[in-house]
Amino acid sequence: MNAEIISVGTELTLGEITNTNARFLADQLRQFDIHNYWQTTVDDQKERIVTAIRQAKQRAQLIFICGGLGPTADDVTMASVAQALNTDLVLDDMYWATVQDDFRQRHLTLSPENIRQAYYLKGGQALTNPVGLALGSIFSDHDHTYVVLPGPPREFQAMVTQSLRPHLEKLTSGRTIMNRVLHFVGYPESTLMDDIQKVMGTQTKVIATSYVQPDETQVRLTVFDCPMDVAQQRLDQAEEQIVSELGSYYFGSGEGLTLASQVVKHLKQLGMTISAAESLTAGLFQSTICSVPGASEVFTGGFVTYATEMKTKLLGIPEELINEHSVVSGEVAGAMAQHSRQLTGANLGIGFTGVAGPDGLAGHPVGEVWIGIANGQQTITKQLHLSQQMGRQAIRQQSVQRGLLAIEHLLKSLN
Amino acid sequence: MNAEIISVGTELTLGEITNTNARFLADQLRQFDIHNYWQTTVDDQKERIVTAIRQAKQRAQLIFICGGLGPTADDVTMASVAQALNTDLVLDDMYWATVQDDFRQRHLTLSPENIRQAYYLKGGQALTNPVGLALGSIFSDHDHTYVVLPGPPREFQAMVTQSLRPHLEKLTSGRTIMNRVLHFVGYPESTLMDDIQKVMGTQTKVIATSYVQPDETQVRLTVFDCPMDVAQQRLDQAEEQIVSELGSYYFGSGEGLTLASQVVKHLKQLGMTISAAESLTAGLFQSTICSVPGASEVFTGGFVTYATEMKTKLLGIPEELINEHSVVSGEVAGAMAQHSRQLTGANLGIGFTGVAGPDGLAGHPVGEVWIGIANGQQTITKQLHLSQQMGRQAIRQQSVQRGLLAIEHLLKSLN
Repeated sequence: MNAEIISVGTELTLGEITNTNARFLADQLRQFDIHNYWQTTVDDQKERIVTAIRQAKQRAQLIFICGGLGPTADDVTMASVAQALNTDLVLDDMYWATVQDDFRQRHLTLSPENIRQAYYLKGGQALTNPVGLALGSIFSDHDHTYVVLPGPPREFQAMVTQSLRPHLEKLTSGRTIMNRVLHFVGYPESTLMDDIQKVMGTQTKVIATSYVQPDETQVRLTVFDCPMDVAQQRLDQAEEQIVSELGSYYFGSGEGLTLASQVVKHLKQLGMTISAAESLTAGLFQSTICSVPGASEVFTGGFVTYATEMKTKLLGIPEELINEHSVVSGEVAGAMAQHSRQLTGANLGIGFTGVAGPDGLAGHPVGEVWIGIANGQQTITKQLHLSQQMGRQAIRQQSVQRGLLAIEHLLKSLN
Repeated sequence: MNAEIISVGTELTLGEITNTNARFLADQLRQFDIHNYWQTTVDDQKERIVTAIRQAKQRAQLIFICGGLGPTADDVTMASVAQALNTDLVLDDMYWATVQDDFRQRHLTLSPENIRQAYYLKGGQALTNPVGLALGSIFSDHDHTYVVLPGPPREFQAMVTQSLRPHLEKLTSGRTIMNRVLHFVGYPESTLMDDIQKVMGTQTKVIATSYVQPDETQVRLTVFDCPMDVAQQRLDQAEEQIVSELGSYYFGSGEGLTLASQVVKHLKQLGMTISAAESLTAGLFQSTICSVPGASEVFTGGFVTYATEMKTKLLGIPEELINEHSVVSGEVAGAMAQHSRQLTGANLGIGFTGVAGPDGLAGHPVGEVWIGIANGQQTITKQLHLSQQMGRQAIRQQSVQRGLLAIEHLLKSLN
């Protein structure tokens, strides 16, 4: 089945915002093996929306029209779709009554214009919006299905995953599709997929696709057209094969997982706490840990020792140790880990020292980073050679992710 | 003049990456008063690229085709454009010779396939690529101009701003256009533009548009069709009017400016250093300062005191003070600022305490934040009431930006 995505919004054609909805939806469609070859973006103008729909109809069976469902007069999408389909709009009375009641009870003012957001395509169905006011709509005639969705990314994503997916499952007529997302950190992006293809070998019934994000690379495994238990087995097997080869860069599987949330979860499970002393990362590790709700159970505090003298002044690391080994060394990273652990009374300590650039430091090149981890019995250190090309910010972020990964692997070994 | 943007790439239609190029280019076009109402995205497939170009030609005079200029066989954009325009491709011999020489001198291997990236549209011109190998091309016939640009955002942006802009100036036949970007933090997005319109009043010769980013709101002032000195004067006047009304949220003007880089620059100019103690922000302030190259001149180190006990243990803040005023208070934020300043020997100290959520803390609601700033003579404190709706991460980020803004205003008063 072919699908097309039409995005509507003057803020898009003016370049005020980036169209993240099209990517999100295209990725979802791929999970259902629905093909998307063509996407269109037009401003909030009726004739252009109608033209875009009529052109899409020539090429695809499933047509999405996204954005422009707000309450004001310049939101013309639903009316334009109705015109293109030669149908009318109908009010969802029950929904509108519920919204009015809800606002009354919460003592909130509902603008009379909001009634525009309670209309859907006559002859079709309303699509509920789990996080906003605007209804969506789905409409099928003999050859085509049209889906209207709201523009704000939070509403759009909630609606796609909660209200739309059951319809997509029906449209793809019960093909069993099963997905699993594997998460990797620190693996050279260019070779990850090559290596995964090698590992899976003749395992061609599992399709692997990758998605690179600033702090990780996600690999999605997809299985089509087989009973649930067989699909499950194929995914298990593929994951096992991949992890056994590439496990040192892997931190878990599942939707919405982040490495920091994994580390916080596993620390909690073990009843352990962590502290940190950071030089080049300058607080980014601790801030990343605390981006996870409930981090206070595993993290109480730590240090940013950016200048060399602060490693002595705040942490009490002997000047001689620094002079002997250089400030960019495993010895200093290890001492930072030990001292931050002792000073805060945490179970674990981690230290980061290295060169983020743009210039080298004390004879060390940009991208040389040392991470130390101390647990009271032993201190492990790890050296990274990151590419100067990545730039200052990416070197700092990657250092934090690699530190988290080292901790995650340590915690797994304790479990 | 109307323009259309055609983006080419299977990675776009598969939803693997977000199309940031279309937004970037649309924003640039707006600066030249070139209208964009229609954008198309297709995969790397010749027929669809040709169709997209032929459709765009019906509606616009200026057509951009972006992406698919790589060296491999699936990069078919340049050939597809040639087909749509009934022209051929020609090799830029001189460019290709330069590239070969350059690679030889740097002892790098150049794949023979890279020659594909040295072709441009016959009858048109090559567009130089300041940061990559692929040439772009610009081609004009009687009614239309076609521009071919590479896909990787870094190359795309460099090419648009360096190679394309002179052509756009010519195409818009020398209309004088002048821009200025003003930067704001902490202003409720929804009312900023309303207030700016009110401030500018009848000043209709200056067009103001806004662009919201996670850590700031940018307002671009644009003036068309007047001599340079008049344009300059109009921009100066508009900026002055806006800053006199909304100055408490303003931190500077210019392309590529960030609040952190402003603060670091002004600290350097005054020969001052800063330290920090962070609770809810947990290192994000210090990490943001150190995202600026050369931050080591103004920042040596500081503390993350996430748990209440760490404010006593690491900073030496008396328990009684915390118990008397609550850990979320101006008194504690001020003490954090003072103690971090004293312990590190910095000129300034800043303290952050507050509630990032998801739950309230010690009777304080999510979004209540206190910032303290100490300079040795005095300590100032500031309370923020951020919306719980923003979520944990945005509350932490916004706290950091508001702290930076308070320091920026303090430094300005010292200058």
